Amino acid sequence: MLDKVLNARSVAIIGASKNRTKRGFQAIKTLLDEKYEGEIYPVNPREETILGLPCYKSVRDIDDDVDLALITTPARTIPALLEDCGQKQVAGAVIIAGGFRELGEKGSALEQEVVETAQRVGVRLIGPNTSGMINLKSNMNLVGIKDAPKGAIALLCQSGNMALTLITEATIRKHEGFTYYIGVGNESDIKFHEYLEFFRNDPETRAILMYVEGMSEGRKFLQEAYKTSIEKPIILLKSGRSATGKKSAGSHTGSLAGINEVARPAFERAGIVVIENSDELFPVAETLSSQPPIKNQSVAILADGGGHATIGADLLSDYGISLPELTEKTKQRLREILPEAASVVNPVDVAGGTDSDPGVFADCAKIILKDPNVGGLLIVGLFGGYGIRFDKSLAFGEEEAAHRIGKMVKYRNKPIVVHSLYSSYDSHALKLLRHYDIPVHDSLDISCKCIASLCQYGEYLNAYHAKTNFIFNWRYKAKRRGEKIIQTALNEGRHVLLEHEAKQLIKLHGAPTSVGHVAETEDQAVEIANEINAPVVMKIVSPDILHKSDACGVRLNLKSEDEIRLSFQEIIKNAHNYKPGADIRGVLVAPMAAKGLEVIIGTKIDEQFGPVIMYGLGGIMVEIMKDVTFWVLPISHISAKKMIEDTRSSIILDGVRGQSGYDKRSLQRLLLMCSELIESYPEIEEMDLNPVILYDNGLDVVDARIILKKNPVCLIADE
Amino acid sequence: MLDKVLNARSVAIIGASKNRTKRGFQAIKTLLDEKYEGEIYPVNPREETILGLPCYKSVRDIDDDVDLALITTPARTIPALLEDCGQKQVAGAVIIAGGFRELGEKGSALEQEVVETAQRVGVRLIGPNTSGMINLKSNMNLVGIKDAPKGAIALLCQSGNMALTLITEATIRKHEGFTYYIGVGNESDIKFHEYLEFFRNDPETRAILMYVEGMSEGRKFLQEAYKTSIEKPIILLKSGRSATGKKSAGSHTGSLAGINEVARPAFERAGIVVIENSDELFPVAETLSSQPPIKNQSVAILADGGGHATIGADLLSDYGISLPELTEKTKQRLREILPEAASVVNPVDVAGGTDSDPGVFADCAKIILKDPNVGGLLIVGLFGGYGIRFDKSLAFGEEEAAHRIGKMVKYRNKPIVVHSLYSSYDSHALKLLRHYDIPVHDSLDISCKCIASLCQYGEYLNAYHAKTNFIFNWRYKAKRRGEKIIQTALNEGRHVLLEHEAKQLIKLHGAPTSVGHVAETEDQAVEIANEINAPVVMKIVSPDILHKSDACGVRLNLKSEDEIRLSFQEIIKNAHNYKPGADIRGVLVAPMAAKGLEVIIGTKIDEQFGPVIMYGLGGIMVEIMKDVTFWVLPISHISAKKMIEDTRSSIILDGVRGQSGYDKRSLQRLLLMCSELIESYPEIEEMDLNPVILYDNGLDVVDARIILKKNPVCLIADE
Repeated sequence: MLDKVLNARSVAIIGASKNRTKRGFQAIKTLLDEKYEGEIYPVNPREETILGLPCYKSVRDIDDDVDLALITTPARTIPALLEDCGQKQVAGAVIIAGGFRELGEKGSALEQEVVETAQRVGVRLIGPNTSGMINLKSNMNLVGIKDAPKGAIALLCQSGNMALTLITEATIRKHEGFTYYIGVGNESDIKFHEYLEFFRNDPETRAILMYVEGMSEGRKFLQEAYKTSIEKPIILLKSGRSATGKKSAGSHTGSLAGINEVARPAFERAGIVVIENSDELFPVAETLSSQPPIKNQSVAILADGGGHATIGADLLSDYGISLPELTEKTKQRLREILPEAASVVNPVDVAGGTDSDPGVFADCAKIILKDPNVGGLLIVGLFGGYGIRFDKSLAFGEEEAAHRIGKMVKYRNKPIVVHSLYSSYDSHALKLLRHYDIPVHDSLDISCKCIASLCQYGEYLNAYHAKTNFIFNWRYKAKRRGEKIIQTALNEGRHVLLEHEAKQLIKLHGAPTSVGHVAETEDQAVEIANEINAPVVMKIVSPDILHKSDACGVRLNLKSEDEIRLSFQEIIKNAHNYKPGADIRGVLVAPMAAKGLEVIIGTKIDEQFGPVIMYGLGGIMVEIMKDVTFWVLPISHISAKKMIEDTRSSIILDGVRGQSGYDKRSLQRLLLMCSELIESYPEIEEMDLNPVILYDNGLDVVDARIILKKNPVCLIADE
Repeated sequence: MLDKVLNARSVAIIGASKNRTKRGFQAIKTLLDEKYEGEIYPVNPREETILGLPCYKSVRDIDDDVDLALITTPARTIPALLEDCGQKQVAGAVIIAGGFRELGEKGSALEQEVVETAQRVGVRLIGPNTSGMINLKSNMNLVGIKDAPKGAIALLCQSGNMALTLITEATIRKHEGFTYYIGVGNESDIKFHEYLEFFRNDPETRAILMYVEGMSEGRKFLQEAYKTSIEKPIILLKSGRSATGKKSAGSHTGSLAGINEVARPAFERAGIVVIENSDELFPVAETLSSQPPIKNQSVAILADGGGHATIGADLLSDYGISLPELTEKTKQRLREILPEAASVVNPVDVAGGTDSDPGVFADCAKIILKDPNVGGLLIVGLFGGYGIRFDKSLAFGEEEAAHRIGKMVKYRNKPIVVHSLYSSYDSHALKLLRHYDIPVHDSLDISCKCIASLCQYGEYLNAYHAKTNFIFNWRYKAKRRGEKIIQTALNEGRHVLLEHEAKQLIKLHGAPTSVGHVAETEDQAVEIANEINAPVVMKIVSPDILHKSDACGVRLNLKSEDEIRLSFQEIIKNAHNYKPGADIRGVLVAPMAAKGLEVIIGTKIDEQFGPVIMYGLGGIMVEIMKDVTFWVLPISHISAKKMIEDTRSSIILDGVRGQSGYDKRSLQRLLLMCSELIESYPEIEEMDLNPVILYDNGLDVVDARIILKKNPVCLIADE
């Protein structure tokens, strides 16, 4: 659908100019210089020709089809120009101007007007507040960055300077380049996920590189990413994670940066390779666009010196990658060609074995890659520089080795990444490696990150079948009685379910919880307690009292009739004192839960991603250690398991200090039930199960709170 | 003392050769090529001249003084050659050969022979297993890396390839260089701390850059580092932190890599800037060697685009650096020279304000540096590339700005670090910045790390007075009674103090603990309990039973005489069953401690650093969350406070969930007491105070275990 916009065969430059310093001049100049394959139509009511091209008074006057308009005029002129574009049936417009929501209220109003106009007249918008876009396949360069290298990476970027950074880096590295660059700007019409879908369907794009400050439709993005990452890798850096960073991102594109705790695991679940270090962004994209992913998380290191091998092993182990033991056969074959001092365990250190013949590198690489334990190879040290550092004649041997190493990757379908001190020198052997698409870096850190990212992506592809696709089947598992509980509350004008209502709702979906009964009188309380026939808890029931403890409205572990009568009276009295005139429905009498391990489960609606779920151990683990995990809903059975394992304290569930473990399966089922509940009742804004008490067999949801949305429910438009 | 070795005015090349591929040829060639200022004496019994220099049969035959010998012959030849050197009164020898302890037992024996010979004949050794050394001041290049750049950084490196990496990087950057490079190798004679002392006293060295895999005398190193870092910065990367990394480091230099948990905080307490990312190593050294440290931990960012500003703010906030609010005056002055769309909060975004005049960068920098809240400035974006990216004519404006920015640093004594996309391009403005010693990088991550390191070093210098110098005053505070307790145990052939002995010892030094009394009979037990007149605990007393609970030798909370008598019988019986024939001294009867917060304190002797102390909260915090801190002893009052604060759970001590806090001062005093105790009694190998129960007022050491050294006490030779 974006095809006509991003692959436009004709472009109108609205705001074309003869003034060399103006964007409206530079844009035309660049299109001509770069030999854009389509038609160029300058639009300016006051000029006859610009750079030899006839100039039109309005886009409406152009007598041919116009696919795309580049609008370089100021913000306030945009709505009227979009009307023209609409009449001309222009498919899309790139709006360079800033001065919209990033400038506050007034700008926001103008931005809304622009978007509404565009939607009404059927013109899709890139931007506003963007540096522009480049289609490198047709040389449609609407940015003005010259000589951007062509290649297989699509670049989706929310900062013009970061785009310039990445394109400059690609230019210097002279290996991989781009299919498209799109400056997303304020993302007010075309969203990240739409671009993603377009790139997924573009056969020449082999990887998608993204710099994001904030996105407006996170959930749809996750859904598209999920579909895309199985076909081609997505590499993403999300900035604005710090409070200060957020301030700056806010003033830049006017979009709110998301919470890192939610965003990062969500992105990773959708198969995205998330990068935190901007130096790694392009190298990782380059690697993933050209090298096969590693399936078994296992990498071997081949070094010509101890230092690099040691640092490399440190870094890979930080990334959680195993350096597997080599088979006895591999070691034997390495021993045959290496000197005695060489180390043939992983990392392999040739210990001078390549000094007089760098071809030994290729021999070693061949032996190591053949090892079934090894999924990929990292070569570190001086390869490519033997001719520079030691003796010129060694360069030819390096070149021969480079050819062999290059072919190996395709033959074995296992990747090789090369760290070479001489990466920025003029080394023909290294040029050859790049010719075979092998990434070469002079940074050891970046080389390690590159091979690690191949493991990460490989692991994702392996586990793809167990992933959720981030799509809700709204109301799919809703129950009539559940809907009635919610409707009753809404009919009474309440947005909070009473405790027993919330418990009834979750019990309906299979959660183990003791609901109890509401007593309106002392006698009823005693009667309910007698039926329970065990110690009870009593809690105030009032839609006006959210925090029952604050109102002294909770009594625990009550046994005798006297205790129960006295508690009833006190709870009611305290409630009246706490909030005179409160609507008091009675006192909930429920069985006292046995002691066990307290955990907390909560759900909320995240601004960017919609419904999310939180899980953690209760008490200081959540309050002090912040040892919780957030996942975007819905979750699968396996996700529920992984959520639990993702907390550092999860080993407590397995039993420590000689205690027996806790019932993780029941906990897993409860997490799944929460996911199902949120899916079933879109009216729910927040849910808190706190505490849930876990036993060695089973669990008990001791308190439940469910808050409904204040606005009439509008579903996240998924399907 | 190392002066004659490292500043040698004459070098003998033992193993000199006419064969171009031999090290003994290359070494002479390099010295001649690089124009070494001293005398060169080739030694080879079978040659007359080499490269035009007369050749000697033995170093003894040289008729002039010889300061240093470079020995290039194999391992087994070294002892005899050192004898010759000794007779000739050669001050030092560089031993290139490998084949020592890194090859196992046999190599270790040879290494020991080499070291003993050297010490006997009075020759200091660099290496063995080293790539060599370079004195760039006198062009004494004993490595063969050509054209290493001269400068103010001393390089101390335990891997030849890492040295080559760093020297290559310096060569490419063309700004800062080196005074010395020393390949430390196996560090068998001259130790890291001796080199450090030498560099501290070398007036031309302004910073010390270290790559370490393992060091043999960590404590002495800390002591020297403490003295050095107040004068000049030390920048260090310690590799081999991962299990796999350790394996590789072990096979490389044969030295065991230290525990990161101990090493890193110890290094930082000694003022060392610890680096984890090898890409940052040289840039940080370059920055610290030339820029003034930042005193107030506060940095401003000046950007010409949002993306870089946002990422920069993210990174600085990750490093714990504050981006302070600018004063109203600063903001006003910035507003006067910047366009309306500019952001004048920190980060400052010029929003096109420099497009037509890059000189505005210098104006902004001047205004920002004048702000009293700002300690240093990070400029990010395109500066230096306006002439390349936009219009050639802008280059001159950039150059003028570069001059002004360069002078500003000296005038204000506040540092500036510049990130520029065009760092690797031929930009005269950037050359000028480097001329003024301003670091320029194309990596945003590295630029941020550089300015962060100036904050870290500045913070250290500010707090220097509160640091400990890592020196023990052995036995300084020992008490006669304490020595007697230890002597009694040793006389009995015991290496474990009995619980009541350990408690007596710590009580002697002021630790609050209820020692109780040892009952040999039931009647005595009852008598002691009566005197205590409160619930008691009873524990088996036997030098043969270390883990009392395992032997069912502990009874808690005993009140009645019957309970006490029965417990006594059972404890004794269980002990006999647990270990028939055990030496049973009786049963310790002590008051039962009240409930409170459990913490754990322990000390041990670390292989690299000697005595260290550990502190953490008891229970799952230490067992599951590993929330503990390790510090090298001795500690100061302020260190004790900081140790407590360094655990994530320390806020629990301040009181959470409405509970009152705990007595942190008493805990601090107890930590100090532990430090004093270890200092007083060098016989102690390990001490465990577990648990210590903390109250809102005071504390109680409930159990104490002290293990004595098995070997006769040899003090760490500090003084």
